[in-house]
Amino acid sequence: MKAALLTVGTEILFGQVVNTNAAYLSEQLNRLGIDVMYHYTVGDNPARMKDMIVLAFNDCDLVLTTGGLGPTEDDLTKEMVCEVLGDELVLHEPTIAHLKEYEKNNAKKLTKNNYKQAYVPSKAVIFKNTAGTAPGFALEMDGKTAICLPGPPRELKNMFEGEVKPYLEEKSGASIFYKQIRCFGLGESDLETKLLPLIDTQTDPTLATYAKEGECAVRIASKRKTRREAEEAVSEMIKEVDKLVGEYIYSYDDEELPVVVCKKLMDMDLSISCAETVTGGLFAKTVTGVPGISKVFDRGIVAYSDSAIENELGINPDVEKKYGRISEEMALELVKSIERITGSDFCIASTGNAGPNGENVGLSYIAVSFRGEYETRRVFGKHKNRDFIRNTIMLNMFDMINKKLQDIHE
Amino acid sequence: MKAALLTVGTEILFGQVVNTNAAYLSEQLNRLGIDVMYHYTVGDNPARMKDMIVLAFNDCDLVLTTGGLGPTEDDLTKEMVCEVLGDELVLHEPTIAHLKEYEKNNAKKLTKNNYKQAYVPSKAVIFKNTAGTAPGFALEMDGKTAICLPGPPRELKNMFEGEVKPYLEEKSGASIFYKQIRCFGLGESDLETKLLPLIDTQTDPTLATYAKEGECAVRIASKRKTRREAEEAVSEMIKEVDKLVGEYIYSYDDEELPVVVCKKLMDMDLSISCAETVTGGLFAKTVTGVPGISKVFDRGIVAYSDSAIENELGINPDVEKKYGRISEEMALELVKSIERITGSDFCIASTGNAGPNGENVGLSYIAVSFRGEYETRRVFGKHKNRDFIRNTIMLNMFDMINKKLQDIHE
Repeated sequence: MKAALLTVGTEILFGQVVNTNAAYLSEQLNRLGIDVMYHYTVGDNPARMKDMIVLAFNDCDLVLTTGGLGPTEDDLTKEMVCEVLGDELVLHEPTIAHLKEYEKNNAKKLTKNNYKQAYVPSKAVIFKNTAGTAPGFALEMDGKTAICLPGPPRELKNMFEGEVKPYLEEKSGASIFYKQIRCFGLGESDLETKLLPLIDTQTDPTLATYAKEGECAVRIASKRKTRREAEEAVSEMIKEVDKLVGEYIYSYDDEELPVVVCKKLMDMDLSISCAETVTGGLFAKTVTGVPGISKVFDRGIVAYSDSAIENELGINPDVEKKYGRISEEMALELVKSIERITGSDFCIASTGNAGPNGENVGLSYIAVSFRGEYETRRVFGKHKNRDFIRNTIMLNMFDMINKKLQDIHE
Repeated sequence: MKAALLTVGTEILFGQVVNTNAAYLSEQLNRLGIDVMYHYTVGDNPARMKDMIVLAFNDCDLVLTTGGLGPTEDDLTKEMVCEVLGDELVLHEPTIAHLKEYEKNNAKKLTKNNYKQAYVPSKAVIFKNTAGTAPGFALEMDGKTAICLPGPPRELKNMFEGEVKPYLEEKSGASIFYKQIRCFGLGESDLETKLLPLIDTQTDPTLATYAKEGECAVRIASKRKTRREAEEAVSEMIKEVDKLVGEYIYSYDDEELPVVVCKKLMDMDLSISCAETVTGGLFAKTVTGVPGISKVFDRGIVAYSDSAIENELGINPDVEKKYGRISEEMALELVKSIERITGSDFCIASTGNAGPNGENVGLSYIAVSFRGEYETRRVFGKHKNRDFIRNTIMLNMFDMINKKLQDIHE
């Protein structure tokens, strides 16, 4: 199936809003095996909108529109789709009921205009809007299908996930299931090379690798007659992937590394503290971004000045004099110090230079302690950008704790 | 002038990349007084690309393309633009020289394919690529202008700022100058209401307000015959804006609040330390994100557990028992404690609950000290999202320091 996306909204043409809806829908449609051929964006102008819909149907069977379903005068997507495909708008009673309920739940008085949103094409399949007021719909006429969705990203995503995806799956007579697996410690090209035996021989499930900042992921997708068959195929393939790159995998459920680590710490009731120089609070900030973490996070010390390192952490200035601030020894001193102060099960420390000035830009050392056992790691950020370097160190800190947690578990 | 944007790239249609170039160019063109009528995206397919260029010129005088200028076989934007407008590609000697220099500076061997990038339309104005290898160009034929730019955002922005903007300004016979002013402490609608007397009566300079997360901005733009006239008009208008909302303005140069504050601290050589509970290291992380800050940032303590609050900061547990963890008194105790420990010129502390669970979600108190003087602020985050709440508190922390710095300066 070939598809075109039509985004309706003057704010996009003004550059006030980045068109993330187009990226989201493209990714979703591609996963469903639908080829996205074009993106179009047009303002809230009925004539141009209509021309675009006609154009989009020229060589596509499926056109998805976003935006222009609002309550105001210039929201005319429905009207234009009806004109092009040959249908008319009729009052949709369930939407009236939904609007009244929405009004009650949100203690928000709807205007008369809002009821314009209850009109839908007479031959359409209606998609309920669980996050807002405008319903979406699919209208199929003579082999051409228009799917009209609301513009606000949250409304769009809820509707796509809950109603549009099943509609498209049914239409294609197949069910799609996928899992995204996250890896740390190897680059995307290494991951791809290691998985090549699977990638080359497989038609279903398919494997695709993705690069993220400082880490990478593999998506395993299967398209089968039933959801159950697809799930089983993915599950079998995960076993094969595990054999090849299992040591690098930290999440089978597309969760971020810090979240994975913090959840394990909470589950196992293991306390944690940190002493940071180069990451400057980034590790503590990331840990404390996870809800419920106060159960296990004790404290973090960001020591920038010499006096902070000496007085707050009680580190002998001779260590720095002898080995330098950026050294394995310094990282070990920092972690032993925070461990002595807090007695936390896990302690972790970072020291280095994130740039842009000074010596050894990009070089850092991390030390982790678990109840009197110590490990260190040297991290060198190739990219000389302060944010990137600090982010790389922070991810390595979580990776070291994760590896240790895996050891404990075994 | 009416313009269309054409993005070339299969990765956009796969949803792997969000089309931020379209938003950037739309904003830039609108600022230059050029109406953006359409966005189009098409894959690396020559026939469809050509159709799109023809279509885009149907009712636009100006078509800007991004992408498809690379060295590979499927990079065919230049070829298609030449076919549509009627020109041919010729070897551009300065680009050959640029490629050789690039090769030398980046210690990177260019392939034979790279030299494909040195061919440009014979009648084009060439734009040098300071951040990469592919040059851009403007080709005007019979009143229709195509501007072709590289796809990587950094290359695109450098080229637009340095070469395309002056080209378009000259073409329109006018010079545009603008300033973006940033405000904290009032919402966008309040800002607009206060500026209404100016917004309503002005045609040039124009004033437009923008909302950002937790803060807002106003852009003042003037289009005059010369750059100098435009600059003067903007400068005069800033005086008027200052009269109405001066107390909320923290940057006349579109700089972020933390950066503004950290630069002032460094300039005035004032040391700073922090004690965080609710912001959990976010303040320290943001301060230490500014290069050179080690000159004035002493330390940060993230105290999450009771023992950290009592032992690390030496706070009497009776304060928390009497007033509660989320109280003005607790914030004051925290700031007095970090001040006592560090003796920093500025100290700042946060305490509160960022949710999602527990009592008083969204409520926080901040206390700031400057050499023995204390101030507090109550912050209530309306939006019950952990990241948003923590971000709001962090910005308020910087705002309190900024206000104090303004007092000192006066």
